[in-house]
Amino acid sequence: MNQIIECVPNFSEGRRADVLDEIVNAMLTTGVMLLDREMDASHNRAVVTIAGEPDAVAEAAFRGCQRAAQLIDLETHRGEHPRMGATDVIPFIPIRNVTMDECVALARRVGERIGRELEIPVYLYERAATRPERRDLAYVRRGEYETIRAEIATQSERAPDFGPRRVGKAGAVAVGARPFLIAYNVNLDTRDVQIAKDIAKITREKGGGLPSVKALGFALEDQGIVQVSMNLTDFNVTGMLTAFQHVRAEAEKRGVRVLGSELVGLVPLEALAQIAREALQLEGFSSRQVVEVKLAEAGNA
Amino acid sequence: MNQIIECVPNFSEGRRADVLDEIVNAMLTTGVMLLDREMDASHNRAVVTIAGEPDAVAEAAFRGCQRAAQLIDLETHRGEHPRMGATDVIPFIPIRNVTMDECVALARRVGERIGRELEIPVYLYERAATRPERRDLAYVRRGEYETIRAEIATQSERAPDFGPRRVGKAGAVAVGARPFLIAYNVNLDTRDVQIAKDIAKITREKGGGLPSVKALGFALEDQGIVQVSMNLTDFNVTGMLTAFQHVRAEAEKRGVRVLGSELVGLVPLEALAQIAREALQLEGFSSRQVVEVKLAEAGNA
Repeated sequence: MNQIIECVPNFSEGRRADVLDEIVNAMLTTGVMLLDREMDASHNRAVVTIAGEPDAVAEAAFRGCQRAAQLIDLETHRGEHPRMGATDVIPFIPIRNVTMDECVALARRVGERIGRELEIPVYLYERAATRPERRDLAYVRRGEYETIRAEIATQSERAPDFGPRRVGKAGAVAVGARPFLIAYNVNLDTRDVQIAKDIAKITREKGGGLPSVKALGFALEDQGIVQVSMNLTDFNVTGMLTAFQHVRAEAEKRGVRVLGSELVGLVPLEALAQIAREALQLEGFSSRQVVEVKLAEAGNA
Repeated sequence: MNQIIECVPNFSEGRRADVLDEIVNAMLTTGVMLLDREMDASHNRAVVTIAGEPDAVAEAAFRGCQRAAQLIDLETHRGEHPRMGATDVIPFIPIRNVTMDECVALARRVGERIGRELEIPVYLYERAATRPERRDLAYVRRGEYETIRAEIATQSERAPDFGPRRVGKAGAVAVGARPFLIAYNVNLDTRDVQIAKDIAKITREKGGGLPSVKALGFALEDQGIVQVSMNLTDFNVTGMLTAFQHVRAEAEKRGVRVLGSELVGLVPLEALAQIAREALQLEGFSSRQVVEVKLAEAGNA
């Protein structure tokens, strides 16, 4: 529990479980924990979540990319999800005692190595981007594998940050750094999905709402309620408490009661500490004051 | 990070640091972490906080008690704090994946062993008490070492739960189980200490306020503000958010603004999870959703 980062590489394989097994096995070196793995057959894509000390996670990401390049052929790959490489994206995410700058440096180091040793073109994206437009993954991946293959040698805006100006069967990979993404939903006591859609619209950053928040409104038909489903893309900018209070206030304006909220997947401890700081006006609080953290750090010392 | 308990033995030695060193060294066996140690010369008393797996902590508590009995003589001990033994109290406290019942069972097991192997009389107290009146440590310790020495052989209400009906130079020890105690303060933007005292009075359980809350009002002279200082003796009954909101509402009634709050010392992760559950109406949340916890548990598996 000294320095912890997370890495969520996406691989262009959502159907052959044995292929994903081989890629995951290549990544699980000492000091790296597998937190999650998910395959989607229609997307033909896998999302793997690992975490651990930065150097170990960097090594794991490289090895996963190397193995995927051996096992996945973009010439024959088809799926609903946009993709440009066997390993499509590699984001590094600070969790504990690590800065975003350190994750950016790590992304560049891993990207350089992938370019040099695997001869795969690498685009740095999000916080690691070297050009403003490349912060946006959708821009980097525009036209997908087939277009990049056609344009990379000739179009200057397709020049990779690392690796050759040619694409093989492993395609290209986006390597970057970003904050932890919190998937957070608020459930409303109404059957009127328009209310959830309206609240989502004014809650999300694009609608002039909360910064670093994406939001959609859904009906949960089986429960007869609706949901404002959010991605908090940088909880240091907008955290769970702010998002919850915003949605609740908007629901109340519309005479609708909040039934509850739910967190999908994981959160860093720091996101819980943030709730305590905000809800209690808690001053000087450090997550080192959590018994379990203090114990884990004492155990490592 | 499987099962974790805390133990906070109090020793009747607040002046000789080398004596406390020897006691602490005796306790620090494999799997036990020292979280804190404090000596108070005028109290002539030391408070040691350790944590770890239940069996390891039980062994450590026994060894500390054994060493204290060799090094501390109650016949010559004087201090402001009431005391009845070289090791005065041994509370076991559930932190993670441990029930209160398990801590009660542990207290009884350690108490039995202290009585049998060290021939020190043991009174079970708080949640481990075998008689209702012995839940109260002050009752168990009434009259201190000197009175217990005089009465233990003859008075039935002085009969120990374990060990002999006679007191040696190591005195007697109270062994028990209790919830984690959270020391939590709320600061108010006024110089009028009576406001803090009034709010404390109606906040504490004894004044008909919040259950499992002790509270006092203080002036923080140097800052020109006042403070409601609380002990939350069972945060599952009254947690930090409830205590904060209660004090804030009472302050607002009196036209006084809350400046902030502060947590003294440590809290279990579960107390942070509780704040999130309450402040966000968060449903189905488990502290296993915290990345660091998931990592630590994966590391142990």
